[in-house]
Amino acid sequence: MYRRPTGIIDINCDAGESFGIYPIGDDDRIFRYVSSVNVACGFHAGDPKVMEKTVEMAAKRGLQIGAHPGFFDLRGFGRREWALPPDEIRTDMLYQLGALDAFLRVRGLHLAHVKPHGALYNMAARDETVALPIVEAVKAFDPALVLVGLPGSAIERAATNRGIRFAREAFIDRQIHTDGSLVSRRESDAFVPEEACVSRAIRMILKREVVSVEGVLIPCECDTFCIHSDTPQAEVFAKALREALNEAHISVEPFSAGKC
Amino acid sequence: MYRRPTGIIDINCDAGESFGIYPIGDDDRIFRYVSSVNVACGFHAGDPKVMEKTVEMAAKRGLQIGAHPGFFDLRGFGRREWALPPDEIRTDMLYQLGALDAFLRVRGLHLAHVKPHGALYNMAARDETVALPIVEAVKAFDPALVLVGLPGSAIERAATNRGIRFAREAFIDRQIHTDGSLVSRRESDAFVPEEACVSRAIRMILKREVVSVEGVLIPCECDTFCIHSDTPQAEVFAKALREALNEAHISVEPFSAGKC
Amino acid sequence: MYRRPTGIIDINCDAGESFGIYPIGDDDRIFRYVSSVNVACGFHAGDPKVMEKTVEMAAKRGLQIGAHPGFFDLRGFGRREWALPPDEIRTDMLYQLGALDAFLRVRGLHLAHVKPHGALYNMAARDETVALPIVEAVKAFDPALVLVGLPGSAIERAATNRGIRFAREAFIDRQIHTDGSLVSRRESDAFVPEEACVSRAIRMILKREVVSVEGVLIPCECDTFCIHSDTPQAEVFAKALREALNEAHISVEPFSAGKC
Amino acid sequence: MYRRPTGIIDINCDAGESFGIYPIGDDDRIFRYVSSVNVACGFHAGDPKVMEKTVEMAAKRGLQIGAHPGFFDLRGFGRREWALPPDEIRTDMLYQLGALDAFLRVRGLHLAHVKPHGALYNMAARDETVALPIVEAVKAFDPALVLVGLPGSAIERAATNRGIRFAREAFIDRQIHTDGSLVSRRESDAFVPEEACVSRAIRMILKREVVSVEGVLIPCECDTFCIHSDTPQAEVFAKALREALNEAHISVEPFSAGKC
Repeated sequence: MYRRPTGIIDINCDAGESFGIYPIGDDDRIFRYVSSVNVACGFHAGDPKVMEKTVEMAAKRGLQIGAHPGFFDLRGFGRREWALPPDEIRTDMLYQLGALDAFLRVRGLHLAHVKPHGALYNMAARDETVALPIVEAVKAFDPALVLVGLPGSAIERAATNRGIRFAREAFIDRQIHTDGSLVSRRESDAFVPEEACVSRAIRMILKREVVSVEGVLIPCECDTFCIHSDTPQAEVFAKALREALNEAHISVEPFSAGKC
Repeated sequence: MYRRPTGIIDINCDAGESFGIYPIGDDDRIFRYVSSVNVACGFHAGDPKVMEKTVEMAAKRGLQIGAHPGFFDLRGFGRREWALPPDEIRTDMLYQLGALDAFLRVRGLHLAHVKPHGALYNMAARDETVALPIVEAVKAFDPALVLVGLPGSAIERAATNRGIRFAREAFIDRQIHTDGSLVSRRESDAFVPEEACVSRAIRMILKREVVSVEGVLIPCECDTFCIHSDTPQAEVFAKALREALNEAHISVEPFSAGKC
Repeated sequence: MYRRPTGIIDINCDAGESFGIYPIGDDDRIFRYVSSVNVACGFHAGDPKVMEKTVEMAAKRGLQIGAHPGFFDLRGFGRREWALPPDEIRTDMLYQLGALDAFLRVRGLHLAHVKPHGALYNMAARDETVALPIVEAVKAFDPALVLVGLPGSAIERAATNRGIRFAREAFIDRQIHTDGSLVSRRESDAFVPEEACVSRAIRMILKREVVSVEGVLIPCECDTFCIHSDTPQAEVFAKALREALNEAHISVEPFSAGKC
Repeated sequence: MYRRPTGIIDINCDAGESFGIYPIGDDDRIFRYVSSVNVACGFHAGDPKVMEKTVEMAAKRGLQIGAHPGFFDLRGFGRREWALPPDEIRTDMLYQLGALDAFLRVRGLHLAHVKPHGALYNMAARDETVALPIVEAVKAFDPALVLVGLPGSAIERAATNRGIRFAREAFIDRQIHTDGSLVSRRESDAFVPEEACVSRAIRMILKREVVSVEGVLIPCECDTFCIHSDTPQAEVFAKALREALNEAHISVEPFSAGKC
């Protein structure tokens, strides 16, 4: 099993979530601060032109490129839970992986990782019948792909059981319960105060620990942080984070190439 | 340039055009009579589950598998002409090729050809600004792919100019003008009487000639015949054609592997 | 509260579920045997051309016309449960009711009822947070509309509480538990043997009772039977049912006009 | 035939073109400067939730509300010409009119006008086979509706022939040829310099004339001006226009109620 070297972390962001004439986020600006990007595949967001442009921008910066597949739900941005049959989850995954891969292939590039989006991410974290078809699709498409998800989740177990590498994702700005689960967005204390995020992140990386919302010190194993690209203050935060990591001599590197 | 050996022909059919609960055609039955299949990619017809099943059926029979990309128009089955920008035609092609390729890749198979569907096929036959982005997408995705289309068309010229092999498609049951163009479906004499189709096909293959609707004997170069899978009499016709070809010692083989 | 006169029943069928070039069911044939039709609204099935044609066919036969709204899920025919916010369920309902109403309005007709489709029907039967926005949409659109659903369901309670008339639907061919719920389609004894369906229906109508799958005689209040239009044997069954009802002097009439 | 009183003009804007999580324009701000709004119907933009919110905002300000139907083309925002059969144009129109009408109906409001969007608007301006099914749908839905389009267009002729009132739309910021047609957006002189727009508008209203891009003074009959809502400077311009109209004692009023 992989164990991240303490002085290294990956930073990922979701990208390519514009659609048609509708822009969202400023991908190119936020790409300056990340090491890996998750590109939407046209189901919950994105379209073929956006996908090509996003891959091109990520490639120019030498970033690790992964897929960000979701439910076929443009209206709801893939955020509503949906009781699809496992077999359809698997074939929807394959379709999206292949579609995105075309835009890498024509540049001589290869997909490095897969991070499910929104409701699919959440369902796969807790429900093995959703996690399994995702893992099976990834394994069939390319067993060297790394799956990204919550530590301790159903999809981590499914991936590990099937021999697929798993990168554990932490959220810098979200509070966590003592049992490791995220505090629901609906709770008033769901988010970490902005001024506390950076030091929290560094503690997670260097000490592999975090203080839960209940005030308990708990272990925290993570391989990648997710930062947002669609808020005005996203870039300010990303810059501050990178500077702090730099001062702490923490290297930001993609988790591919055997590193997770 | 390729020249088909006289005693060999390919027979292709469009496949995987069912969608959700809506079946269309009996692909598996018609697959017994063809050498290559063009699989819909989810834009004008098909969906990920249908695509997987269709690839699986074609693979079982050892058929040559190609893509059948079309306009993103489920309501109209991709049959209405649409003024998309060339760049969107190109990226829509890449998306569809990649999506279908995923279902071959997981079986260790490779796409062999690409035949655009419906309005895209017709527009590419006469309009270079539509033909070019199709050829560019195919070349970027895999320069070994064979494009299928009308002989003497804009897309044949575009493909040849860019070094992409082109398989010339003939329609057994459609009348042709002396200049080589198809008689419009709206004309009363658009179709060849059913009882004349088979002998017409054999003449096309062996003598490389056909009688136009105006009664003139014209040259006919073709590498593949298209047969339908979505009519009740399709199978009867396919069977009769194969028997006649057999008697005439004409071999039915896919046009891949350097043969066109 | 409405109480159906014993000698009268409505027979409804879902209709207009073809899409684009994909036909489903033979609506016009089955329309000979029903008194009310539920027309799909383009979300789970149907499209504007199909909707117009279906309304036209139903109007010609003088049938009561209602809406058959569903989830925005063509791929899955609206059969997969989906966690939409109540407010989106309500606005999706209004959109579909209005869209269908246009095709009645241009003929001087009025919508008489609303029967949710598939997963929306099932979720509304057991979950008040789904039932309520449906009832609210119906009430806002036209408080004279009748909602159709399962007897004893959450949507019956919601409709009754808001002053919306409710037509209780029974399934002739589905087994029922002693508590009134349907035996799941996944169970081997989900369906009533075909030869028993007609006598079962007549008992439901005349005696307002039915024998549960556990063998217990239970009360059965119903205002309408649903028959299918998409199976080859649908018409044979419909014809047999109508003949038996005729012999039993049971009149088939729509439930509108104050009759439920 | 209608003749606008010289001291009155309508100002319209397209609205409700956000989709899902994707916002576009700041409708509520621009609504302060217009007298009528054209609400997207979910085909080229908009969704049921956006439609309801837009109708609500317009109703609060007492604006005249119309439909803004377009091609079923979210990816291309309805801007690409599409060869749909006339019958499908007609039924697509009815579907969209009905869907939007539901959100007015539940507030006791009525649709006042219809302005086709994008490619549909342009095709209807020059092609009678596109204009006619639009006019037929409008007439069948509600013959009191006013159609909005280019003066001298095919759709103006079709509407007038069928007895449907027509509001002639002028573009303040677009140059016009001496024959009345718009200078293509692809030309370098397509747009009127911003500082000249307001005085040009006032001349159009008061003197019913305009100077063509070729420098010729031509007559200009118009009943409504279109202003944009989706650019940062839209509000500044709208405010300046309203102030100038005010100084010139020109009243801004909707064109309904027999005024065009």
